[in-house]
Amino acid sequence: MTNVRELTLEDKASLLSGKDFWTTKNIDRAGVPSIMMTDGPHGLRKQTGSSDNLGINDSIPATCFPPAVGLGSAFDPDLAKKVGVALGVESAIEDVSVLLGPGVNIKRSPLCGRNFEYFSEDPHHAGVVATGMVRGMQSQTVGASLKHFAANNQETDRMRVSADVDPRPLREIYFRAFERVVKNAQPWTVMCSYNKVNGTYASEHPWLLTDVLRDDWGFEGLVVSDWGAVNDRVKGVAAGLDLEMPSSDGVTDAQIVDAVRNGDLDEALVDRAAQRVLDLVEKSGHREKPDDPLDVDAHHALAREAATRSVVLLKNEGSLLPLAEGQDIALIGEFARTPRYQGGGSSHINPTRLDTALDSFTQAVGDRVSFAPGFTFDGEPSESLRAEAVEVARSSDVAVLFLGLPDAAESEGFDRTTIDLPADQIELLDEVVEANPRTVVVLSNGGVVSLPFADTVPAIVEGWLLGQAGGSAIVDILTGAADPSGRLSETIPHRLEDNPSFGNFPGELGHVRYGEGIHVGYRWYDKRGLDVAFPFGHGLTYTEFEYGEPTARVNGRGDIDVSVGVTNVGPRDGREVVQVYVGRDESAVDRSPRELKAFSSVEIASGQTRFVTLTVDRSDLAYWDIRADRFVVEGGTYRVEVGASSRDIRGEASVSIDGDDPDVELTRESSLGEVLAHPKAGPTARQRLAELMGNPGVDDAEQKSGTQPGAAADSDEPAGDEPMDLDTMMASLPVGRLVSFGVPQDKIDELIEMARS
Amino acid sequence: MTNVRELTLEDKASLLSGKDFWTTKNIDRAGVPSIMMTDGPHGLRKQTGSSDNLGINDSIPATCFPPAVGLGSAFDPDLAKKVGVALGVESAIEDVSVLLGPGVNIKRSPLCGRNFEYFSEDPHHAGVVATGMVRGMQSQTVGASLKHFAANNQETDRMRVSADVDPRPLREIYFRAFERVVKNAQPWTVMCSYNKVNGTYASEHPWLLTDVLRDDWGFEGLVVSDWGAVNDRVKGVAAGLDLEMPSSDGVTDAQIVDAVRNGDLDEALVDRAAQRVLDLVEKSGHREKPDDPLDVDAHHALAREAATRSVVLLKNEGSLLPLAEGQDIALIGEFARTPRYQGGGSSHINPTRLDTALDSFTQAVGDRVSFAPGFTFDGEPSESLRAEAVEVARSSDVAVLFLGLPDAAESEGFDRTTIDLPADQIELLDEVVEANPRTVVVLSNGGVVSLPFADTVPAIVEGWLLGQAGGSAIVDILTGAADPSGRLSETIPHRLEDNPSFGNFPGELGHVRYGEGIHVGYRWYDKRGLDVAFPFGHGLTYTEFEYGEPTARVNGRGDIDVSVGVTNVGPRDGREVVQVYVGRDESAVDRSPRELKAFSSVEIASGQTRFVTLTVDRSDLAYWDIRADRFVVEGGTYRVEVGASSRDIRGEASVSIDGDDPDVELTRESSLGEVLAHPKAGPTARQRLAELMGNPGVDDAEQKSGTQPGAAADSDEPAGDEPMDLDTMMASLPVGRLVSFGVPQDKIDELIEMARS
Repeated sequence: MTNVRELTLEDKASLLSGKDFWTTKNIDRAGVPSIMMTDGPHGLRKQTGSSDNLGINDSIPATCFPPAVGLGSAFDPDLAKKVGVALGVESAIEDVSVLLGPGVNIKRSPLCGRNFEYFSEDPHHAGVVATGMVRGMQSQTVGASLKHFAANNQETDRMRVSADVDPRPLREIYFRAFERVVKNAQPWTVMCSYNKVNGTYASEHPWLLTDVLRDDWGFEGLVVSDWGAVNDRVKGVAAGLDLEMPSSDGVTDAQIVDAVRNGDLDEALVDRAAQRVLDLVEKSGHREKPDDPLDVDAHHALAREAATRSVVLLKNEGSLLPLAEGQDIALIGEFARTPRYQGGGSSHINPTRLDTALDSFTQAVGDRVSFAPGFTFDGEPSESLRAEAVEVARSSDVAVLFLGLPDAAESEGFDRTTIDLPADQIELLDEVVEANPRTVVVLSNGGVVSLPFADTVPAIVEGWLLGQAGGSAIVDILTGAADPSGRLSETIPHRLEDNPSFGNFPGELGHVRYGEGIHVGYRWYDKRGLDVAFPFGHGLTYTEFEYGEPTARVNGRGDIDVSVGVTNVGPRDGREVVQVYVGRDESAVDRSPRELKAFSSVEIASGQTRFVTLTVDRSDLAYWDIRADRFVVEGGTYRVEVGASSRDIRGEASVSIDGDDPDVELTRESSLGEVLAHPKAGPTARQRLAELMGNPGVDDAEQKSGTQPGAAADSDEPAGDEPMDLDTMMASLPVGRLVSFGVPQDKIDELIEMARS
Repeated sequence: MTNVRELTLEDKASLLSGKDFWTTKNIDRAGVPSIMMTDGPHGLRKQTGSSDNLGINDSIPATCFPPAVGLGSAFDPDLAKKVGVALGVESAIEDVSVLLGPGVNIKRSPLCGRNFEYFSEDPHHAGVVATGMVRGMQSQTVGASLKHFAANNQETDRMRVSADVDPRPLREIYFRAFERVVKNAQPWTVMCSYNKVNGTYASEHPWLLTDVLRDDWGFEGLVVSDWGAVNDRVKGVAAGLDLEMPSSDGVTDAQIVDAVRNGDLDEALVDRAAQRVLDLVEKSGHREKPDDPLDVDAHHALAREAATRSVVLLKNEGSLLPLAEGQDIALIGEFARTPRYQGGGSSHINPTRLDTALDSFTQAVGDRVSFAPGFTFDGEPSESLRAEAVEVARSSDVAVLFLGLPDAAESEGFDRTTIDLPADQIELLDEVVEANPRTVVVLSNGGVVSLPFADTVPAIVEGWLLGQAGGSAIVDILTGAADPSGRLSETIPHRLEDNPSFGNFPGELGHVRYGEGIHVGYRWYDKRGLDVAFPFGHGLTYTEFEYGEPTARVNGRGDIDVSVGVTNVGPRDGREVVQVYVGRDESAVDRSPRELKAFSSVEIASGQTRFVTLTVDRSDLAYWDIRADRFVVEGGTYRVEVGASSRDIRGEASVSIDGDDPDVELTRESSLGEVLAHPKAGPTARQRLAELMGNPGVDDAEQKSGTQPGAAADSDEPAGDEPMDLDTMMASLPVGRLVSFGVPQDKIDELIEMARS
């Protein structure tokens, strides 16, 4: 193993940026090989041909698993782990050392063009699922790259914009998934994001890359830049950005050398970064190339399983689904023939195969399917296509209508400006439903779309982007070959205007204010009591589950064990996603009504009961305390809710938690209210204050107006003449300021001293 | 006139804090007298007896005009000026040099306990009305004190909390009324607030008190601290806080002297502050004591006129109002007998008289009025009081029910936690309406209350807090002796949860984030398309107005003259408040749909038409540009809406404005999108870039995946395989970063140079 001490300054600096678009530099003399990183996260995008510095060549075929928007809906870290293992295997076969994923940024706005690459609007969910995926990948000695760190929640102006986020949302929402994955799975690398965080580029943010990531969370791997994210390379080295990608053609390597020679950069910082590159290369060296080539069939089967698990059945009135046998089916919509199965941008995979719903349907039910494309992807209404589709719908028993967003509507690199489906598709839908009310809508979309037809269409299937096996998976769901088991990891609102970030997204002139604070996603809709189209955690199945009374108790480690019996009372086997939310009604800080703290996707056979036990980590109860600058668990009672969605709570329990609240020390800055409320010092302080202010009736002090109206003295006591007292008018006065009200400074200090002891 | 150069350092320091609770220090040797300041703003609160340093003694009787919540509803700077003149006269009679008001803080949340002292949720409205008031006061050689500067929009933790506000809302919303009054009326003093602004106490904030207030706006007067707002006196002097109030018993004077002696404070800064105190004293010296004593009757009459103008008729179904003659009237509610006519705290006036609705009603209609209190102010339901009231309602032709917030519900010093009326009053209302559907609700409240009965009660009168003549004024309105002409200067929402600040108010642990940004009040409800109970600007009359087509044209000064004919087509004379809102659909920055930019309250006789011309100042079209750090008027088309409320727009025009948009210079930080969109340089840059990147098909550059699916090559072109192009994927790339994509630095600089020239 190479040690930095064996290398020259130039050698070390050279290790800190890429050799080309996808590889690190080798130093043959010192026995340091080059290693390869390639895009992910839901498949391998290893480019063929010469390394052209632009990355525009085709990539080799690889299995395209469901993007995160799909996989996240499975609410299942074990499934994510299986996919991660498969990604690791494919990487290992191709000698790829690091696959660039997963992405755990929070879906702050449904408009973010890259939401399809992210798991959730909830940090617990994203962190748990991504942990599974990283563990799977790294089990194959292939490194993950947890991205994009941090607060990269939009594409608009992504390379310059400053995400202006307060400490609590930063820590509790935007960092939380990163923190969980780092602590629980130690990804080999973390990728810093393009944007600024509170004014400083993530790629040169010492607090972000070192204080938080390493000192607070214990990250042991390497920090790599997003491709092209480096602004000032020397600052980056000092901040903790170890590896710049792609190549800078030697320019920034020379800057690093110069900075050390000029005394502007401590060589120890270069050593630190170079050693991390060496460590990564060393770890990669332990990977052996698999003997067998890629088992295309097996991985396609896994992609199909994952896709099936990703589908969310939003609505199913009159049990239109699964489609009864023997019906004539109108299959409508270009998406059924030309699937949209992944998003645009760096994650774009060249699939080994591609299932279409049309082929799979035909295979499943033969010539009972009649297909009509109904519309084109360019959004131009076509009267003839529409008429044909309506006719097909009219003459069939049931219509299955594939609607969605064409590729041009969402991609890495830009954000949407609307969550509406293309108008021509909605018009088609209206006519199809009129022709045949027995219509099932199947959606293909990477980001949430509005569903103005949610009340009128009897069945809606959210198919997201499902990867290369999405076509067969969706047919499995529609025909009942598989039971739907996905749940929404993102709220579907009625209107974009209801979204928490609305009016604060995507910002302007280089800044975006995260004004909604901690109330992101369902937290906001619940906090403000807003109606939504479909809530976070929602998803139907073809069977039915009943919940028993949940119990919750604090275990020996201080965590909360939650148990509940769940019975499949329906006619089919199925999966229930049991969700545990925790809330707290009284608190020193503002709280969302409920936050997801545990979940489990469990298979339950028809007629069977399973007792599910989930654990809520005590540390997940904490809020970020801006005074103490650390997470603090408040002591007291917590509401533990168990449910089938965030708005379908089936049972509730409560637990009492020992807090680690910091003792607030009384100082001159303490308010009178705080002093008077102090359990020990309060009563004496009140008495002493009364004396000090030379007024035994101190409760009636300051600014109080006369209680006898002047010329109106004869009238009744007006309602507006209540006296102000110490506990209201003056409660917020810092005791040090009593000087202004005639209390000498030394007497105030005496009072504080007394209260402290 | 005394000059600071005649004074010792000790003398000068002594001038910088109060002698006692209400006066400045005299220096007899140098001929510097002491002057008095007292609380306002809607009446004089001069305390009698010894100056006891606590201000708890009774104040002398003075006319209690409607607090700002009422006066603001008149939408009339001329009326505010008349009240200001009266306040000046009363101050002059009592030898008071400065009356501490008006308050122009924005009603960010309906919960703010001091909202009754503020005019509006709209900064234009607050600034215009307050300008009138200040002009009135100062016409009597009595100084105003414009308060509380700045961002003091809550009472919770008001002496420590940091209002964390971004530049645009700070400048466009929270500073704007202050700026208008300073520029248009030069108040003698500005009072700094208790709170911190973005982390720094207002009382020691150099940017706030000097850079903004004096350098940007040209303030020429004196800055006085809110009573007890000084944290660090020496920092305050340096920042521009001239006068500390009340007395510090010499403690802070000595600190100032020490700081100068130690070299910690430049004596010139002490001179600056002391000179301003001397200037204020000098100005006060020009005031002559009026010969006549207070004309109690005349001022009471003005208070009654102002109160009448403050009433807002929210709803009047079936023309229940004005009350037809000859009806038996059930007058219900303790507020009718014991009026709530002002708020609690420092603004509390000892009125010269007090009209009650009960007395005034009896005077107006004799024994046709039956009174029942219905409830008590303590909120405890009383079965007997309720039964009595219901019985009275049942046996009368019409019920007039006074509901409201008792004094304990709102005051300076604390914020409300709900906008609901006390439950016992709502229960009473339900029973009264059941007994007699012909019910008029009259409200007494300083802050907005929710109106869950808005759909069921036929008539609702918003009576706010109306000062000492409120009782007679409200009866004038109810009986039709006066026509209602007030308009809402604050939205009445359906629910507290709909308010923009909800979830961000009142903050926690010392910070409050103004997360809603510029979208305050109706700006938010309009932006998000939220239904409200009664919109900003709303108010009915007993007559009806029709609007002609408005015209708008840019005049010679660049301002917009808006003209509209308004016809009183109803049966009575009345007042219409013509409102002009401006909006802009396309903009470089986020905009609220409409913003109030001009208004006028005009009397129009029945059957008459008045042509109203209002001017929108060009400067009021500006947004605060965070790049240029100044106000910028965007060039282009503006929508000019003329209406009777923010949601009752009667006509629209549009104008084209020459902008003063700053030319954005292209740099390495400019995005590729900005370079390519550059009108002159764009096309050449695109061509040159294509060459530089060694790829004529540059539109298909970077990160593009294969367009031929691998093993799926035989299928149709998948929808997910559109190429990414320069205008989407790479648009946000700063051109300097092209280094990472193989373009040499010098070529990039060449490109920028070319684009610039």
